[in-house]
Amino acid sequence: MQNLRINLVKRPNIKITADIFETVSEETKELGENQFLVEQTHMSLDPAMRGWMEPDTTSYIPPVNLGDAMRSSGVGKVVESNNDDFPVGTQVAGMFGWQQYIVCDAKMAKAVPAEIPAEAILSVLALPGITAYQGLYNVIEPKSGETIAISGAAGSVGSLVGQLSKIEGLRVIGFAGSDEKCAWLKEIGFDEAINYHSENLDEIVSAAAPDGIDCYFENTGGAVQHAVYNNMNAFGRIAVCGMIGDYNTDKPSAGPNWINIIRKRLKIQGFTMPDHQAEWPAMAMKMGGHLMQGKIQYRTHILDGLESAIEGINLLFSGGNNGKLIVKL
Amino acid sequence: MQNLRINLVKRPNIKITADIFETVSEETKELGENQFLVEQTHMSLDPAMRGWMEPDTTSYIPPVNLGDAMRSSGVGKVVESNNDDFPVGTQVAGMFGWQQYIVCDAKMAKAVPAEIPAEAILSVLALPGITAYQGLYNVIEPKSGETIAISGAAGSVGSLVGQLSKIEGLRVIGFAGSDEKCAWLKEIGFDEAINYHSENLDEIVSAAAPDGIDCYFENTGGAVQHAVYNNMNAFGRIAVCGMIGDYNTDKPSAGPNWINIIRKRLKIQGFTMPDHQAEWPAMAMKMGGHLMQGKIQYRTHILDGLESAIEGINLLFSGGNNGKLIVKL
Repeated sequence: MQNLRINLVKRPNIKITADIFETVSEETKELGENQFLVEQTHMSLDPAMRGWMEPDTTSYIPPVNLGDAMRSSGVGKVVESNNDDFPVGTQVAGMFGWQQYIVCDAKMAKAVPAEIPAEAILSVLALPGITAYQGLYNVIEPKSGETIAISGAAGSVGSLVGQLSKIEGLRVIGFAGSDEKCAWLKEIGFDEAINYHSENLDEIVSAAAPDGIDCYFENTGGAVQHAVYNNMNAFGRIAVCGMIGDYNTDKPSAGPNWINIIRKRLKIQGFTMPDHQAEWPAMAMKMGGHLMQGKIQYRTHILDGLESAIEGINLLFSGGNNGKLIVKL
Repeated sequence: MQNLRINLVKRPNIKITADIFETVSEETKELGENQFLVEQTHMSLDPAMRGWMEPDTTSYIPPVNLGDAMRSSGVGKVVESNNDDFPVGTQVAGMFGWQQYIVCDAKMAKAVPAEIPAEAILSVLALPGITAYQGLYNVIEPKSGETIAISGAAGSVGSLVGQLSKIEGLRVIGFAGSDEKCAWLKEIGFDEAINYHSENLDEIVSAAAPDGIDCYFENTGGAVQHAVYNNMNAFGRIAVCGMIGDYNTDKPSAGPNWINIIRKRLKIQGFTMPDHQAEWPAMAMKMGGHLMQGKIQYRTHILDGLESAIEGINLLFSGGNNGKLIVKL
């Protein structure tokens, strides 16, 4: 089988540009014992991928080696198999990378029911789900009646956090980068949706959270971070999941002064999805249940063809995507 | 009995100046049922008092009302009593404020054994002890073999945190503002003591912590904060106790960017002593034990007479005190 693969061949110089990738065509390897061949059908593009391109070896996950396929999660179908647990036709999810065909063993792929659309897996049950679940339940520990603020709220993680928070009885304030995204947030049940490009963001936040903010799910950094931080209540909890506003810059923005961390006894905690793979089953049960009952909405932004990933990934950093960014192969 | 009392009569305009206080002389009130009169002998001056002077009602403790005695903790002796639990001669500790005589009921004072010097109570067993104990054991949760960094390490809280950390088997790096203070830190067992006025602080910190920093006890903010933050290890814990470098300024310094909170999965948590009064007995047992076994050293900087507090408190912010700052009445 002929495999098309996109390798990372250079580290990005701040912005992601086409010249850091190389598309190669190669023969797929013969299947060994217990191996099976996956044809990837849907590939996820996520903000965290920007960090994986960096040479920083002290981060939570090793960098993508130059010359290797760019790392990504995806969904596919088994098309050849030497493994009885993964017969031909099985729908599988895994970290398949930017390529069409992947020779897998059992550790590299997870079978998922064929009835669940690939889009739902990548938007709700895979990375976004485990990330939202971990940050909300294990870091923030939300209590009914509290107020939560969410930056990057129209993103795949943010929109899940908001909907889970509504289910838990919180007042939910979302921040997004366009009026269209804000309208969608209201549609899926957010109490308040604020365009972060607004002037006087501090005042808008104070007005939207007259009783202050107890919980903050941070996906972006920037002006929202400061406006929310200034309105935190005593014993507030902040889960730091992403800083998308600072990934593509050589001058990361300054954080807030720490005096309020003392005065308000705040807890600010970072977390990353790969540390919490063990919670996948609990998350999938909870999310799957909500999804089937129609309590969780998602929307997707579909790109067409493997090579659309190269330019398409930048939509995440310009805010140009409306929904979970997925490449359909 | 004639009482001399220093009231807070104005909010400070950034720096603490003599004109925000007023010294008054007044007759002490008659003792009611179960009340007793305390003559304060030793009064503690602490950095947190700067915050208590602010009108900010959202902080962890209400502001000192204008016209009231400045709030402070102290030690004294019962000199008149209508309460059998507090006979004349009992040594007591409490939030007595800037005054000589205090009419107390049982809630306002705690009896402490007469054998413990007042200096040891104020330096180890009272505010500094509960603060060090809470931040180290409940926020940081230190593990033997880890490395801890402590800013304001020669202060009353910092020096206790460092000595407790040595007892727990950690490598201890302290930051202080003079070579003399650094020499004292080495004397009491710190592994490394760094003068934070040094040039190339980042490089000095990297060299002092070749395996990175797991725990940070923050008392000051400023350049130390950034140098330590940049050297934190994955899953590092930061207890934010004080930001003394920023209390006396109208331009609080910027905090570090939050990207490392994600990459390193850091936990940054603020805490304040009054939230943890319930842990006093556990702390007193532990600290008292260490103190009696000579495992904990302290040193005091004694000022003479009630009114010396007015100028003396500024030593805390200039770093001019060498040891726990105490006013002897």
